[in-house]
Amino acid sequence: MSVSIDQVWAAAERIAPHAHRTPVLRSRSLEQMVGAEIHFKAENLQRVGAFKFRGACNAVWSLSDGEAQRGVVTHSSGNHGQALALAARSRGIPAYVVMPEDTAKPKLAAVRAYGAETILCAPSLAAREQISAEVQQRTGAQMIHPYADARIIAGQATAALELLREVGRVDSLIAPVSGGGLLAGSAVSLGALCPNAQIIGAEPEGANDAWQSMERGERVEIAAPNTICDGLRANLGAINFEILKHHQARILTVCDAESVAALRLVWERMKIIIEPSCATVVAVLLRYREQFAGQRVGVIFSGGNIDLDALPWVKG
Amino acid sequence: MSVSIDQVWAAAERIAPHAHRTPVLRSRSLEQMVGAEIHFKAENLQRVGAFKFRGACNAVWSLSDGEAQRGVVTHSSGNHGQALALAARSRGIPAYVVMPEDTAKPKLAAVRAYGAETILCAPSLAAREQISAEVQQRTGAQMIHPYADARIIAGQATAALELLREVGRVDSLIAPVSGGGLLAGSAVSLGALCPNAQIIGAEPEGANDAWQSMERGERVEIAAPNTICDGLRANLGAINFEILKHHQARILTVCDAESVAALRLVWERMKIIIEPSCATVVAVLLRYREQFAGQRVGVIFSGGNIDLDALPWVKG
Repeated sequence: MSVSIDQVWAAAERIAPHAHRTPVLRSRSLEQMVGAEIHFKAENLQRVGAFKFRGACNAVWSLSDGEAQRGVVTHSSGNHGQALALAARSRGIPAYVVMPEDTAKPKLAAVRAYGAETILCAPSLAAREQISAEVQQRTGAQMIHPYADARIIAGQATAALELLREVGRVDSLIAPVSGGGLLAGSAVSLGALCPNAQIIGAEPEGANDAWQSMERGERVEIAAPNTICDGLRANLGAINFEILKHHQARILTVCDAESVAALRLVWERMKIIIEPSCATVVAVLLRYREQFAGQRVGVIFSGGNIDLDALPWVKG
Repeated sequence: MSVSIDQVWAAAERIAPHAHRTPVLRSRSLEQMVGAEIHFKAENLQRVGAFKFRGACNAVWSLSDGEAQRGVVTHSSGNHGQALALAARSRGIPAYVVMPEDTAKPKLAAVRAYGAETILCAPSLAAREQISAEVQQRTGAQMIHPYADARIIAGQATAALELLREVGRVDSLIAPVSGGGLLAGSAVSLGALCPNAQIIGAEPEGANDAWQSMERGERVEIAAPNTICDGLRANLGAINFEILKHHQARILTVCDAESVAALRLVWERMKIIIEPSCATVVAVLLRYREQFAGQRVGVIFSGGNIDLDALPWVKG
């Protein structure tokens, strides 16, 4: 199973009535610091505050009417749950989101506010998968995995596709990597439109399963990731890994302190809110700047969902 | 002395090579809260982080070569100083910025980083004007007032012009009001393109000289404004007041707590950094929402310059 650029074009058409066409931003000060021309695709300005809406929306609108009517189900403590809830609402079908019982209340409230039914489970992957399977059996809902799903990957790929349609050829394209939905999708778009360009994943050192996987040529799992980048703790999916291997993705890692400094820099210089997971791409640009010198670089800003009441950590 | 739409078109052409064409943003959640269709012109994403660059750039590039070569001078503790410094650098001419000696160091550093010479003075308007006059006499530099200047007003007017060119007809246009450069400029653009629309100034209750001036039909000055909106403490300029009177501007006031709540809302929902002065426009939309119900509204987001280390006040 793979994902083709035709599937990405189809996804782009499918989600166009629902998703924002997010702006592409520049920053002279960041460009001077890195020594490169950089085009930032601002998916933090996407609906639900993250690129995740693209994949969820494509998955929901890919279903036949018969499949769709019984709804969709997923397990997610983060942006994918909100994205799927909103995507389901856009089609007028039920969404069931299985979430660990220790999920922060605002996240539960956000998923419910988009009209989904939330089902609490014990905070383990086994429990999440078991409860999801039960919900699926009880309701007949379609399971929509957060990243290891061709429809999701094709949907996430539309961010890079839009970026390349708008800015043209790039030398490198950087996106954060977690389960690999965004990075694998970006690799498909880049591989078709700019086949000689380099696809790069930004990953926290404390959750570097993608880096290890690419080094060893086989998928490595990390049981206890350790990073403040709460959106980047998942392990690569199998289909995601195969796509990244095919496109010879390069993974560059950064430490959390670099990501926090990068976040501050973006807030102050670019005047936009990005979340720590998203800041990894800027940390990569700065730490590995000699690799980008003189290049035209595309970057996916993945999201901007942050708890303002937990802000002190951004202080210098 | 007044400002015509032809001067605004000329300003738009003059600054085009230097200023960003900032994006126009929407927010479904804010639109639902207000019950209106709202188009936000994101001047917080402008160079130097505020609309001020437009006016400064227009003023600097309006000078003849003979005038320009001796440089420009102004007094400002805020964004206008940075804007003029960068505008002068874009033309390769000297800039002298007179600043009160109690100005925060990061602001001094920012003006110097843009290549301007800073001159410190006692923290009073009289001292600022005296020192500015001395610098002007010594250097032969052109004085560029922050707002009471037709070139500045025409430059600031280009933000509203771009907004209206992009989104078309609006029913109302809201911008913050301080000295009145932005609001008077916006009134000129709106008056020409949408003569039946209402121009609205957003003003803090603790610095409501514009509201008082429009009520009385004559310019009122406030000696000691009291607001956290540090960009909105100046009194209306004379030319600015005349333009606002001509266009029958309506001033709507908000308290600081409303502006802080509005700022949080924009950071969380729109994922962009705006400063408290800028948040007044959203506070106005929410407090006076019945006046905007069903309307198509244009809004100028004026700026996003904020000290992240002074953040605790955004906490709920």
